[in-house]
Amino acid sequence: MNLTDEQKADIAALRATPAQTLRATSEGMERHLYEPKPVLDHGFVRVIDYMGDDTAITQAARVSYGRGTKSVSNDEGLIRYLMRHWHSTPFEMCELKLHVKLPVFVARQWIRHRTANVNEYSARYSILDREFYIPAQDSLAAQSTTNNQGRGDTLQGAEAERVLNYLRDDAMRAYDHYEEMISTEGQQGLARELARMNLPANIYTQWYWKVDLHNLLHFLRLRADSHAQYEIRVYADAICEMVKDWVPFAYRAFEDYRMGGENLSAAALDCIKRMLAGEDVTQETSGMSKGEWREFQAMLD
Amino acid sequence: MNLTDEQKADIAALRATPAQTLRATSEGMERHLYEPKPVLDHGFVRVIDYMGDDTAITQAARVSYGRGTKSVSNDEGLIRYLMRHWHSTPFEMCELKLHVKLPVFVARQWIRHRTANVNEYSARYSILDREFYIPAQDSLAAQSTTNNQGRGDTLQGAEAERVLNYLRDDAMRAYDHYEEMISTEGQQGLARELARMNLPANIYTQWYWKVDLHNLLHFLRLRADSHAQYEIRVYADAICEMVKDWVPFAYRAFEDYRMGGENLSAAALDCIKRMLAGEDVTQETSGMSKGEWREFQAMLD
Amino acid sequence: MNLTDEQKADIAALRATPAQTLRATSEGMERHLYEPKPVLDHGFVRVIDYMGDDTAITQAARVSYGRGTKSVSNDEGLIRYLMRHWHSTPFEMCELKLHVKLPVFVARQWIRHRTANVNEYSARYSILDREFYIPAQDSLAAQSTTNNQGRGDTLQGAEAERVLNYLRDDAMRAYDHYEEMISTEGQQGLARELARMNLPANIYTQWYWKVDLHNLLHFLRLRADSHAQYEIRVYADAICEMVKDWVPFAYRAFEDYRMGGENLSAAALDCIKRMLAGEDVTQETSGMSKGEWREFQAMLD
Amino acid sequence: MNLTDEQKADIAALRATPAQTLRATSEGMERHLYEPKPVLDHGFVRVIDYMGDDTAITQAARVSYGRGTKSVSNDEGLIRYLMRHWHSTPFEMCELKLHVKLPVFVARQWIRHRTANVNEYSARYSILDREFYIPAQDSLAAQSTTNNQGRGDTLQGAEAERVLNYLRDDAMRAYDHYEEMISTEGQQGLARELARMNLPANIYTQWYWKVDLHNLLHFLRLRADSHAQYEIRVYADAICEMVKDWVPFAYRAFEDYRMGGENLSAAALDCIKRMLAGEDVTQETSGMSKGEWREFQAMLD
Repeated sequence: MNLTDEQKADIAALRATPAQTLRATSEGMERHLYEPKPVLDHGFVRVIDYMGDDTAITQAARVSYGRGTKSVSNDEGLIRYLMRHWHSTPFEMCELKLHVKLPVFVARQWIRHRTANVNEYSARYSILDREFYIPAQDSLAAQSTTNNQGRGDTLQGAEAERVLNYLRDDAMRAYDHYEEMISTEGQQGLARELARMNLPANIYTQWYWKVDLHNLLHFLRLRADSHAQYEIRVYADAICEMVKDWVPFAYRAFEDYRMGGENLSAAALDCIKRMLAGEDVTQETSGMSKGEWREFQAMLD
Repeated sequence: MNLTDEQKADIAALRATPAQTLRATSEGMERHLYEPKPVLDHGFVRVIDYMGDDTAITQAARVSYGRGTKSVSNDEGLIRYLMRHWHSTPFEMCELKLHVKLPVFVARQWIRHRTANVNEYSARYSILDREFYIPAQDSLAAQSTTNNQGRGDTLQGAEAERVLNYLRDDAMRAYDHYEEMISTEGQQGLARELARMNLPANIYTQWYWKVDLHNLLHFLRLRADSHAQYEIRVYADAICEMVKDWVPFAYRAFEDYRMGGENLSAAALDCIKRMLAGEDVTQETSGMSKGEWREFQAMLD
Repeated sequence: MNLTDEQKADIAALRATPAQTLRATSEGMERHLYEPKPVLDHGFVRVIDYMGDDTAITQAARVSYGRGTKSVSNDEGLIRYLMRHWHSTPFEMCELKLHVKLPVFVARQWIRHRTANVNEYSARYSILDREFYIPAQDSLAAQSTTNNQGRGDTLQGAEAERVLNYLRDDAMRAYDHYEEMISTEGQQGLARELARMNLPANIYTQWYWKVDLHNLLHFLRLRADSHAQYEIRVYADAICEMVKDWVPFAYRAFEDYRMGGENLSAAALDCIKRMLAGEDVTQETSGMSKGEWREFQAMLD
Repeated sequence: MNLTDEQKADIAALRATPAQTLRATSEGMERHLYEPKPVLDHGFVRVIDYMGDDTAITQAARVSYGRGTKSVSNDEGLIRYLMRHWHSTPFEMCELKLHVKLPVFVARQWIRHRTANVNEYSARYSILDREFYIPAQDSLAAQSTTNNQGRGDTLQGAEAERVLNYLRDDAMRAYDHYEEMISTEGQQGLARELARMNLPANIYTQWYWKVDLHNLLHFLRLRADSHAQYEIRVYADAICEMVKDWVPFAYRAFEDYRMGGENLSAAALDCIKRMLAGEDVTQETSGMSKGEWREFQAMLD
């Protein structure tokens, strides 16, 4: 992650000018404000703004005049109750605004989460920088042989090298031609909105992304999950670290009831009851398909 | 608007405990925080939290590292440009959280705006207060004779008195019975979730309502409009006063391009061109229906 | 449920005029079209239109040129896989449009589901009918003594009678006054948008409600649940019957993975593993609060 | 646009198997069903399904039991009234499902419209085809010299040829390397989710896109506009042709009140009044900035 001196100065200026406010304030989050947290080779996530804290959740759940309860343990208990029983609206009362720099193919997955506000850097209007995601050697994985939508072993030796060379060289050449096409020296210069089409999906873009806590946790549950593509998971992991400092009660409940939890089907619940009653349940007697049974076994491992 | 002493103390406590923050802060909005602004006979609107200010809009439009531009005039110019050209996403980067006390029939209109977060006081869980909206004499209007969805003249004399008596007496009796039905003295006591069905639509409810600035301005354009029902318009008007202090550039642009503006149809635009060229256009030659022509004439008045 | 002769004739006319279409068609749903299914004392649900069927789900999941797969068992297997792994977007490719007549206090819960399209009968514009929900004797329940948000035993004898009398008499009186206030005989006549405020929350309203299958199933999971208020649950139950005939594969998967399933927290999963390994886990050693432990025990019963 | 024989057979099969339905049916739209309408060099739009017709709009606006009014002219008049007064919910009662093949850089603009349902062909799971958008000679435009976000003149001669060669050669080379990297012949084979990052933004993707009529018209207003990028505008134009045949009344109202209409600011309205009263208004006396005045003049041309 390379910031220009001007960008560093902008960030330092923002961190150097505190103001007084009467709003709910999260000390844990104030420490993160504006600081870019590096992700992948050139990307980052940084907090631009936040609204609310743990007590903002209980305050809304109670539609109260003051700030939550007097008692901290009551607040955590209520937050856990709300999370457990899928009362999601109080979590929507907190809001987070991030500035993210990320490869285009990651951005394309990310944007599928529709309940959020987005302002992306415009390649119709502006010129993109020469920055591309080139995987580190150890995240250069083969296609999974068991899962059409997953990765297998790490690529080795000459094959790994060949891949990295292709990714690097093709990106550089595409960018050279991009620059050449939009240049107005001695020629008309192609429109930016057209020239950008030559750039590969590992080029970096940036956006401001704003989302409420309920929808953010839903995003994190899917994208910090082990089945998510590595390149978006590292962004989700970085955001998890921030959320933990921002709303520690809500984050702990999220870990217990969502990230660390599981969904049981009717058949799976029935099997567990029978197993607890001493029955030796097999796939054949489980009422589950082979795929479901495999997932069920993995859950109990 | 009657607050209990405890509620007043809660509000005073919140206003007495400023904190330091690195976030964008709006001085104009800090003055409004937590203070209930009275609306109708028992209602209010108060700001619970806000995110962003005018520069947060330009900052997002530019996906910038620092806070907007150095130049205030540039910021206002850009905001006006964005508003004029319906670039709505930068306005979504500001967020407002309100606590509103309002009659149920107003709440039913309000909730039709779906892009917002809501936590309403639960009459399944809690007991509602004995507070009903009784219109002031001068907002007690007859049905419009020209518009099925509007009001005509103010009711006079005995009729007005009769209406007020009905509204008052029916509300009081309904509440007496509500209380009696849920009472557990000497009886089982009806479930709250059932007893509430006896209460009329002028009873007050409350909610926390959180919305981004773009959707808020859309709400205000429809609800602060002269065609909106008076009882929701006064809430919209109260919120306008807050928004004006919060994001003065955006609010001014909103007044110029939305509230004070008009939508021209293709036919209306054609008529204006012909009129400017000296033609004497009539409804018959306008290409508009009678209703459209009437609205067109009213616009040019 | 009382329909006028004109309404019956309208419905009969719609059912008597089939047309040819090239669209995906669900025979099971065609049988439901337009027919009102009675709910509560005066309410109903009826299907106005639908888009898609089970194969529309797999067709979208595969972004295919034809209609799903050739093989029915493949289609069901894929639908179950999608449901199990929370791949929700293919379910959004089916859409349902309902006409619902329901009490206002039920409508107020229902509308909290924001991802849907709604057109409600306007009491600003039109006059409401004299129809109120009066609970049947056996759904007249006392407040629960253990759950602030629930019902206990059925009300008995004189208390039940008193409650029914209040509900009936207050509704009739409120409606008499409503009619009297808007009457223009010998007086100006109060505006409808004001007069409606006198009407209690058990009056019936109606709306067109349109929603995609994913969001509909989410609605049904919450509202057909045993914790939902009885008066909205009967609507959800009626809709379940329709969905079962419309998209039988999706509905069966929904029953297995959502309605009949459970969410396990990290702590609950850990307890199950320990119990299966022979440990005698108690609340004290479970890592759960008393409330969680109670819910956990109930799940395993 | 090249379809395989299998794809052609799938489409023919769908068009050869009509079914009976009681649903509202649009003859104009039945003709479009399934047939791909070519857009750009390899793209298309085709209708997969639709819900509702013009009368479905008025039916919802009236919350009626039957199908709209008896009178066609009443239906059109009401639709025009609804459009003119921004009563958008009845238009949400119609729904359209499209299958679109489009370049990735167009898909990235398109997806910004969030109120829609999307299933995109997955390049994590599947292998993309070797199909790239290469602009026709006459849509190869230079960067606008007056508008940072627009196009100027068409590129000429050697420069045009150079650009086309770059676009073609870089795409082919990137695809060659993509194929080579994922190949498992004599090597492990890179995961698809990684290999796709080498592909430029002019590669074609496909998706199913489902949207209600209100949001579709909003999309068309922005994307069929002369300021939209040409490559998305041609898709919007193709959809306009379909909508015109599907809901002719709604489409005509859309043309009159939205596409052919204009938004007047308060200042612009004031200028028009003064001009109609005979005043010679200039930019200096208009109260508008130079940019606004220029746009105002263009509107009246």
